[in-house]
Amino acid sequence: MASTVIENIGLLATPIGTAARAGKAQGEILFLKNAWLTYENGVITGVGEGKAPAADERLDAEGKLVTPGLIDPHTHLIFGGWRQHELAMKLKGVTYLEILAAGGGILSTVKKTRAASLEELADKAEQELRKMLRLGVTTCECKSGYGLATEEEMKMLHAVRLLRKRQPVELVSTFMAAHALPQEYAQDREGYIRLIIDEMLPRAAAEKLAEFCDVFCETGVFTPEECRRILLAAQRLGLAAKCHSDEIDPIGGTEMAGSIGAVSCEHLIRCQKSGIDAMKAGGTVACLLPATSFYLGAAFAPARQMIEAGVPVAFGSDFNPGSCPCGNLPLAMNIGCYRYRMTPEECLTAVTLNAAAAIHRAERLGSLEVGKQADVLIWDAPDLEYIFYRFGDSLAETVVKNGVVVYTQT
Amino acid sequence: MASTVIENIGLLATPIGTAARAGKAQGEILFLKNAWLTYENGVITGVGEGKAPAADERLDAEGKLVTPGLIDPHTHLIFGGWRQHELAMKLKGVTYLEILAAGGGILSTVKKTRAASLEELADKAEQELRKMLRLGVTTCECKSGYGLATEEEMKMLHAVRLLRKRQPVELVSTFMAAHALPQEYAQDREGYIRLIIDEMLPRAAAEKLAEFCDVFCETGVFTPEECRRILLAAQRLGLAAKCHSDEIDPIGGTEMAGSIGAVSCEHLIRCQKSGIDAMKAGGTVACLLPATSFYLGAAFAPARQMIEAGVPVAFGSDFNPGSCPCGNLPLAMNIGCYRYRMTPEECLTAVTLNAAAAIHRAERLGSLEVGKQADVLIWDAPDLEYIFYRFGDSLAETVVKNGVVVYTQT
Repeated sequence: MASTVIENIGLLATPIGTAARAGKAQGEILFLKNAWLTYENGVITGVGEGKAPAADERLDAEGKLVTPGLIDPHTHLIFGGWRQHELAMKLKGVTYLEILAAGGGILSTVKKTRAASLEELADKAEQELRKMLRLGVTTCECKSGYGLATEEEMKMLHAVRLLRKRQPVELVSTFMAAHALPQEYAQDREGYIRLIIDEMLPRAAAEKLAEFCDVFCETGVFTPEECRRILLAAQRLGLAAKCHSDEIDPIGGTEMAGSIGAVSCEHLIRCQKSGIDAMKAGGTVACLLPATSFYLGAAFAPARQMIEAGVPVAFGSDFNPGSCPCGNLPLAMNIGCYRYRMTPEECLTAVTLNAAAAIHRAERLGSLEVGKQADVLIWDAPDLEYIFYRFGDSLAETVVKNGVVVYTQT
Repeated sequence: MASTVIENIGLLATPIGTAARAGKAQGEILFLKNAWLTYENGVITGVGEGKAPAADERLDAEGKLVTPGLIDPHTHLIFGGWRQHELAMKLKGVTYLEILAAGGGILSTVKKTRAASLEELADKAEQELRKMLRLGVTTCECKSGYGLATEEEMKMLHAVRLLRKRQPVELVSTFMAAHALPQEYAQDREGYIRLIIDEMLPRAAAEKLAEFCDVFCETGVFTPEECRRILLAAQRLGLAAKCHSDEIDPIGGTEMAGSIGAVSCEHLIRCQKSGIDAMKAGGTVACLLPATSFYLGAAFAPARQMIEAGVPVAFGSDFNPGSCPCGNLPLAMNIGCYRYRMTPEECLTAVTLNAAAAIHRAERLGSLEVGKQADVLIWDAPDLEYIFYRFGDSLAETVVKNGVVVYTQT
């Protein structure tokens, strides 16, 4: 493959390193003015200021902002149907757990996901992935968890595998059968947990269908102890642990997840000091989902306390049909900036290097440095502050994935 | 011109009437299923369900949602420069009035607007208008108010006139020299007010550069009495009155505006019962700006109280370089839905018929009825709830302005 230089970069902004940036380092961004970046065979070979070196191909950044490609470390991309009709209920103040208890919510998505073929699920998700790509997303994590039965969960994970062949966004697979208790097991919690541990997890591991295992640790869903059993079983099979915790009630999920060295905890709206301490001790990334808080009118996670305590913060879109029907990571990033009162620099780290760390890819992705993969985003913006200021706009101009231009705004 | 039929409309949703809809009527939407709409010479000639009539040209809505084109009744579209560098200050909690007092804020935009040529202002605004069009906006109000000197204010209004020839979005001109006190008059408030009344307003009226006159009635800006004098002078010259009031402090602007029959009041975050009563008595539309509350982290206007009191509610984007650098009216509409707890039906009226009423165009625009102008929006959506659910997405698929297809999503 030919060498390429991106030249005439007005401002290059990137975090630095191969691991999550925590504490003050979350906001430490390398800024290069009048910069260039070279890559070859999909790998960055040089970054600098001033006169650009020679290369076989040239890409003109026209004086604009360049950052790493965006990484969405938390989505529920694969599902059947939509749930727009729950909006009126939500506007009246009905809670998620009330909708769930009434047989609506996630269980209606489970029905539609089971009814859909693998092809149908992939087709639907592909449309959303193409939208994400146009917003600058180059890597996206996808969770199962609307199948809640062995073959149905595997179907979701196979849809992710199929989508890898069809479009350029890099996909990361997470097994999450512990997303809700299926109706068939409503009277047999232990039976479902055993099904996950004895049948589903071994299948997902043997067929290499998932890198991560996530669980929904929440009042009315799974207890910290149930989640611990599932995650420990997953770890023994080589899947790294993630945990949805403290979204509604702080019941100890984050503390449990930190204690077993989970790679990330998700949501964390009600996270307590004990949870923050556990994440710090466990080397766990706090994966915050600002667009979900926005959509639900919920509180926002205590991001500043996490940063001050030295816990690395990442942002995900949480794209899903119930609590966040929005895959727009730049908008989530802007909501995070305003509501968590995080600086543009801290937020950039949250959607690049720390997001990469939340999916075990910080050695290869998440920053613009020699030796890393050439996942590069040219923005229609003159500086970093501008992309945090112009919320609600689509500012991704050119997207490079693994050294290939995969999108250009027309 | 040939007759056209839009056929295969899955759901047509529109308010009805030629005046603002207030109270319960704000949420009364006509829904037609399996519908069609015909127009000729830019005027709607028929709307119905079932088999579509014959026409010279056919447009297939593919079973999707059709509504009136969106109307943005409040923008500050014309300005020089951007102010992304104030974001860091805002994140630290510095208030708008503090930034203003420090010579920043609006006065820095005034400097850049004065420094720009008419052509430069029009070019910059045209880019934003084209983005608005792609989001489904077919009519857009534009205020002056960054010139703050006679020739500079006229330059802004001439930029609006120039833009009418260049692109398809219908533009509505509002004169708003009472947007801030210019530095040259810092010690002579009365001198500036006399300049507006004696020189600027007559010029704007004589040259037919503005239909409306708006004022910023706020602590540290203009008092209700100063605003009343300006608006009465405007009314005598044939310009209808608008008033920015109760954005930060409830100092009586809304009460004054209602008492003189202003067509709309803007912002209204801190509006009191006396203000609501005054709007009701004055036949004044409450023009709410939800994206501004969102961006500033401010409170949200008491929209439900207004609706209950029978005051018609409209939404605008408030696009401007300081307090809302976002021209995305669908996003503003979604924020309004969630934060004001207004139903999709009430919100649809807020961005169509009531927005039309706020700019004196309800007789011609804002609903899909025989005799009205064919400003039609086909959404990539199966129903009305969907467009309120999928926030942060761009769902405008085909935009028809005055009977002409002016945008199709690719």
